[in-house]
Amino acid sequence: MSLLTVGTVAFDKLESPFGKTDKILGGAATYISMASSLLGVETGLVSVVGGDFPEEYIDLLKSKNVDLAGLEIVADGKTFFWEGKYHNDLNTRDTLTTELNVLETFNPVVPQNWKNADVLMLGNLHPLVQAGVLEQMENRPKLVVLDTMNFWMDCAWEELMAVIKNVDVISINDEEARQMSGEYSLRKAARKIAAMGPKTVIIKKGEHGALLFQGEQVFYAPALPMEEVFDPTGAGDTFAGGFSGYLAKTNDFSFENMKRAIIFGSALASVTCEKFGTESLQNLDVDALNARLNEFRELMRFEQIEF
Amino acid sequence: MSLLTVGTVAFDKLESPFGKTDKILGGAATYISMASSLLGVETGLVSVVGGDFPEEYIDLLKSKNVDLAGLEIVADGKTFFWEGKYHNDLNTRDTLTTELNVLETFNPVVPQNWKNADVLMLGNLHPLVQAGVLEQMENRPKLVVLDTMNFWMDCAWEELMAVIKNVDVISINDEEARQMSGEYSLRKAARKIAAMGPKTVIIKKGEHGALLFQGEQVFYAPALPMEEVFDPTGAGDTFAGGFSGYLAKTNDFSFENMKRAIIFGSALASVTCEKFGTESLQNLDVDALNARLNEFRELMRFEQIEF
Repeated sequence: MSLLTVGTVAFDKLESPFGKTDKILGGAATYISMASSLLGVETGLVSVVGGDFPEEYIDLLKSKNVDLAGLEIVADGKTFFWEGKYHNDLNTRDTLTTELNVLETFNPVVPQNWKNADVLMLGNLHPLVQAGVLEQMENRPKLVVLDTMNFWMDCAWEELMAVIKNVDVISINDEEARQMSGEYSLRKAARKIAAMGPKTVIIKKGEHGALLFQGEQVFYAPALPMEEVFDPTGAGDTFAGGFSGYLAKTNDFSFENMKRAIIFGSALASVTCEKFGTESLQNLDVDALNARLNEFRELMRFEQIEF
Repeated sequence: MSLLTVGTVAFDKLESPFGKTDKILGGAATYISMASSLLGVETGLVSVVGGDFPEEYIDLLKSKNVDLAGLEIVADGKTFFWEGKYHNDLNTRDTLTTELNVLETFNPVVPQNWKNADVLMLGNLHPLVQAGVLEQMENRPKLVVLDTMNFWMDCAWEELMAVIKNVDVISINDEEARQMSGEYSLRKAARKIAAMGPKTVIIKKGEHGALLFQGEQVFYAPALPMEEVFDPTGAGDTFAGGFSGYLAKTNDFSFENMKRAIIFGSALASVTCEKFGTESLQNLDVDALNARLNEFRELMRFEQIEF
């Protein structure tokens, strides 16, 4: 099975209470495709970078078996750049710089051999860009997962509504779900969002885990209480990549399997938070992933109770 | 098995986006003992009310099999009164009135036949009052559970440290755990708090559930995503009463059983939130409780995963 993602490939400059970085590799498509590929899924990305994007990062992504046929390189352009500073609680951050650069005129082109990908992950981008990628697919993917953010709700609501009508799963955070639905209760919010199109609604709650809704079914995947959150950048994208990647790998899109997928996503996201950028994700091996999955099992496991 | 609780019995006047109440029955000991008694545990309370406390509430508590031998009635005093208004999100509230009244000079007396209770639940009160009750026990209870709040950390830190040294379980919310430990990471906070005395640390996170820590073991009980939270007053006390009551009923104080206990507590707490005051808790029957427990099982259940 194969997974294609469209999203940003970026330079991030980060500061957290634990230190700071220079410009390092970031972007939603980077995290999504690394997580998916790590699960052994044939993974490709559609994105754009500038001539300043180092060969070293290209090599890194290739070494992680991410197919870069869909990565446009604009020789005389500059790569999308985001600079952020996390507060002491690591839950809130300030954006210091956003330079769209080559992203401003990005017109995604899906490579011919990716037009039949099984799973399509639409990373957080302008809804028209997301729709443009979906339209280029020759066959409707078995599963289309979409991530978005409040920014697009504010300034591209109609376009967002048009694209989410055609996706299977939406993955957003609690604040965004409340804004999108006008409902405070997440159960009500999920129901309203599902009525906009996606049969399955994932509501991410950061350090409080994630909720998975489908019809009247609901599943709660906790986040692992961590010794220290070092840098949460990319956690949400890693989560989405782990979720979509697990479904692609297993070729089972049932609600039961989505529960497992959400735990894979949560486990991988917790790994991403342990170091700056993609460092801990790119060094994760199967034993460490299994150990992490085991921590989740223990965190949620209890023996049958009856009153 | 028997459970004795010390805590407030109060008048609450509540306002939420869904309506308002006159003065109704409230107080930590009320919720704790109702939850415990509902699980079939022999339950007694130590508290104080004024001459204005209506016979109707006495009868209600008695009808729920709560032993009131330890309820002092100060004929010429007034019952503790709290008035609060919840904001639209139901997660934050303003205290409009706090009248300590008879609580100001409360000197708890444990009835002779309760001095050998199996489980002792120290509801949120001045740490000296909590310590006074613990000292009156003839035999060290099999389990002592303590609830407290930031107010006592601010103004009675030494007394709080003295009493928590002697308890087995502490139940506090995330903000309080962070204040108490000076650690943002809840895992680190729990470790520091455990070093102050209680072997088991429960950190309540409101709509995000609760964490149970013991040594390096951790368990996450989610809160049920509710259609509507009507009134969260008493949810934390109901949780503590359900937790302690379940342990008293089963006479099993292992970590495994505490996991089950925390789910019972969460299930009962979700019931309390459905109506104002104790109304929904006092009308809960065994079938409805089992249905609610089943919702929790579904919320957390997933089939084995392996990578």
